[in-house]
Amino acid sequence: MQIMSSIITRQQIDEMEQRYRASFINSLGGFKSTLLVGTRSAAGQENLAIFSSFFHLGANPPLFGLVVRPDVSRRHTLENIIETGFFTLNQITPEFVEAAHHTSARYPDDITEFDASGLHPEYLNNFQAPSVAESVIKWGCAFRERHDMAINGTSIIVGEILWVVVPNEFIGPDGFIDLEAAQTVTCSGLDRYHTTKHITRLPYAKPILK
Amino acid sequence: MQIMSSIITRQQIDEMEQRYRASFINSLGGFKSTLLVGTRSAAGQENLAIFSSFFHLGANPPLFGLVVRPDVSRRHTLENIIETGFFTLNQITPEFVEAAHHTSARYPDDITEFDASGLHPEYLNNFQAPSVAESVIKWGCAFRERHDMAINGTSIIVGEILWVVVPNEFIGPDGFIDLEAAQTVTCSGLDRYHTTKHITRLPYAKPILK
Repeated sequence: MQIMSSIITRQQIDEMEQRYRASFINSLGGFKSTLLVGTRSAAGQENLAIFSSFFHLGANPPLFGLVVRPDVSRRHTLENIIETGFFTLNQITPEFVEAAHHTSARYPDDITEFDASGLHPEYLNNFQAPSVAESVIKWGCAFRERHDMAINGTSIIVGEILWVVVPNEFIGPDGFIDLEAAQTVTCSGLDRYHTTKHITRLPYAKPILK
Repeated sequence: MQIMSSIITRQQIDEMEQRYRASFINSLGGFKSTLLVGTRSAAGQENLAIFSSFFHLGANPPLFGLVVRPDVSRRHTLENIIETGFFTLNQITPEFVEAAHHTSARYPDDITEFDASGLHPEYLNNFQAPSVAESVIKWGCAFRERHDMAINGTSIIVGEILWVVVPNEFIGPDGFIDLEAAQTVTCSGLDRYHTTKHITRLPYAKPILK
């Protein structure tokens, strides 16, 4: 089979129609973790928003990053995280992927995305921020650092993991969580969702000198 | 079916055996993009390393982040990126996932991971950094910013996309790249690789006021 591909130059990228470019660049980078971020303002207003910008930063202490854009629909999440210092992250499974995606709609300030999406808030161990009852893998987080990107005004929030809920059956003898068996969803681009098919699990790589 | 799960406390996480905790926390966050980073030192030494910490930062200009750890096997990649300002990112497909994983082995300084893994360097349009000939989706990048995380000493490299290679057949009419059709690999934890199964593609979410 002949594969037709040519180099797409930076000038061609800059000349793409805005939504076309957003879709192109967003999908290029690969599959992403997609999570629901649960927060509650100091005044008690709950907020739920879908993010696909989680990245691992370290295991000891357990740390991660999350990209927050200067974007109206995500503004409450950022405000609540900084105001209260706490938030939850909740993995998504196929049965509520539409409800999860729907939290990205722009509702009036007095409507919580929990009500709008039909997902249910829960407060585990009296944690400040709500988690998602429908989610089987979820964790509570504390805000630790914020880094602003000079080049485009996005911010990176560094969070620390305080507690984790994972069904016992998905935790292997070596600590590995079987996200595929848990039917955890991954996304590509702005709007496509997938489950996964195992290819292989590989041992720690050691040099083979030929 | 009864799901058994309990809250795993932060104290329990801190008391986990080191490799168990690394595997647990690394897999918790969800599926990740996994990419080969191609660099060449100013002295001409090629380097290839697998990373699973790519995240999208913006489409206009096209920007992303990559986490680099203060870790010996990845040190050359970071040095080359900062020294030369250029690098490539290359998506992985199942036929060379073992070779890609193998680039994480710690070879002596005079051995390039291209030779060790059997993957082939190519220089598209005389770009400074090598891309991977076996990879069908790949792009060239310039180093833009570095942010050091105070809390654990990891660094975030901000890169800008300069050119992209994607086979025409995988680019949809709206700019969306069909990574699943391209057999792009995603990973979970430190060592498990997957392809994907489409669930749904959802329209831009609009409020539904009940």
